[in-house]
Amino acid sequence: MKLYVVGLGPGDQGDMTVRALGALAQSELIVGYEGYINLIRERFPGKEFFSTPMRQEVERCRKALEEAAGGKTVSMVCSGDPGIYGMAGLIYQLAMDYPPVAIQVIPGITAACSGAALLGAPLANDFAVISLSDQLTPWETIERRLRSAAAGDFCLALYNPASHSRPDTLRRACEILLETYPPNTPAGVVQNVGRDGESYLVLSLEQLRELPADMLTTVFVGNSTTRTVAGRLVTPRGYRQA
Amino acid sequence: MKLYVVGLGPGDQGDMTVRALGALAQSELIVGYEGYINLIRERFPGKEFFSTPMRQEVERCRKALEEAAGGKTVSMVCSGDPGIYGMAGLIYQLAMDYPPVAIQVIPGITAACSGAALLGAPLANDFAVISLSDQLTPWETIERRLRSAAAGDFCLALYNPASHSRPDTLRRACEILLETYPPNTPAGVVQNVGRDGESYLVLSLEQLRELPADMLTTVFVGNSTTRTVAGRLVTPRGYRQA
Repeated sequence: MKLYVVGLGPGDQGDMTVRALGALAQSELIVGYEGYINLIRERFPGKEFFSTPMRQEVERCRKALEEAAGGKTVSMVCSGDPGIYGMAGLIYQLAMDYPPVAIQVIPGITAACSGAALLGAPLANDFAVISLSDQLTPWETIERRLRSAAAGDFCLALYNPASHSRPDTLRRACEILLETYPPNTPAGVVQNVGRDGESYLVLSLEQLRELPADMLTTVFVGNSTTRTVAGRLVTPRGYRQA
Repeated sequence: MKLYVVGLGPGDQGDMTVRALGALAQSELIVGYEGYINLIRERFPGKEFFSTPMRQEVERCRKALEEAAGGKTVSMVCSGDPGIYGMAGLIYQLAMDYPPVAIQVIPGITAACSGAALLGAPLANDFAVISLSDQLTPWETIERRLRSAAAGDFCLALYNPASHSRPDTLRRACEILLETYPPNTPAGVVQNVGRDGESYLVLSLEQLRELPADMLTTVFVGNSTTRTVAGRLVTPRGYRQA
């Protein structure tokens, strides 16, 4: 009757919380996208696993809710944080059909936080988080949000900066930001945080526009106060005029 | 020569990551605001602690850097995530004066994530994070960011919604959002996440305007798609028109 919606963080188990590990240990069944299940399968031998490929989110959530309604303790796992582009919202929407299930969301380290930690402190002042994927949000809405964020001088974390169907997404997003932000605005990219091949790159917004990106990349763009300090991206908060 | 900048998450040790706990265990000296040091002192007997009251951020960071430069393994602790209104940026700015120190930021669960998990899934689509404290950011900038975020139909997480010097901060912020968002826009408030007295409240933006707030509160405001589902705040992502 219990369904945990568990954030796995960026990928390395060291970035999971004690509570997330405890929920998985207590669960009889662990459900998730196959790429995430593969990250944790070895650590939890003897558990039952159920995974589906990408884009079968509704089926995956229904399976988790059905099994929990049937009496099992279930964890639905998400990379990063389940509340940020994760499954927490869909679980709550579908849960109306499974009234006895008690749902508990266990937060995880989202890519904005894990990527920022690698790059320095790019989000240390007010920031906006925007997904550049137009699978679930119309592209016009994404453009409007990019323009609004630039109008507010927000720092930015951009999720899903490239897709197979739309290879020029990041370029287009940078062009919109460049309507407001100067070309030398500091920006950064992280790849494979917490996994093999972890890397980060600090560059300018103008250089970012020319960069190829894949789905494991998270992109950061500074605001008018962001600077590079010893190769790191830092947005000051006013404690010191450095 | 090693300085960890460690996110403690919302307060309960269950919300700390494995890596954060490991960094504290390895450290000889743990530095931080006294309120945060008190959260972890008992768990790490035998460690040296150094704490300062609020607003002595520069002194605190210099102490951590000095001791690390002197050869100690040091952790500077922050509540939530050190990169989000935490000490990571200031540490990098000051670190230029202490070149031998190797800095590693260990991310933590920020209030946007821990509060959202309690409320439902209010940030499951694009969102902005704004601090309402005018200690380090001019109030005009905060107003501009609130208006820009509303123009972009962002969901919002608002940090530091009240201060002693400015008791009407949250009311004023709500009035600005109400220029764009309808009065019945779903909103939510969390208090003392991960601590004694943890609570959450789902209400309308209009009701939020009338609410007293204190510094341990984080405030959430939905966008045009956010709704309440079985008493929780949910921003759908388009998987399903529920």
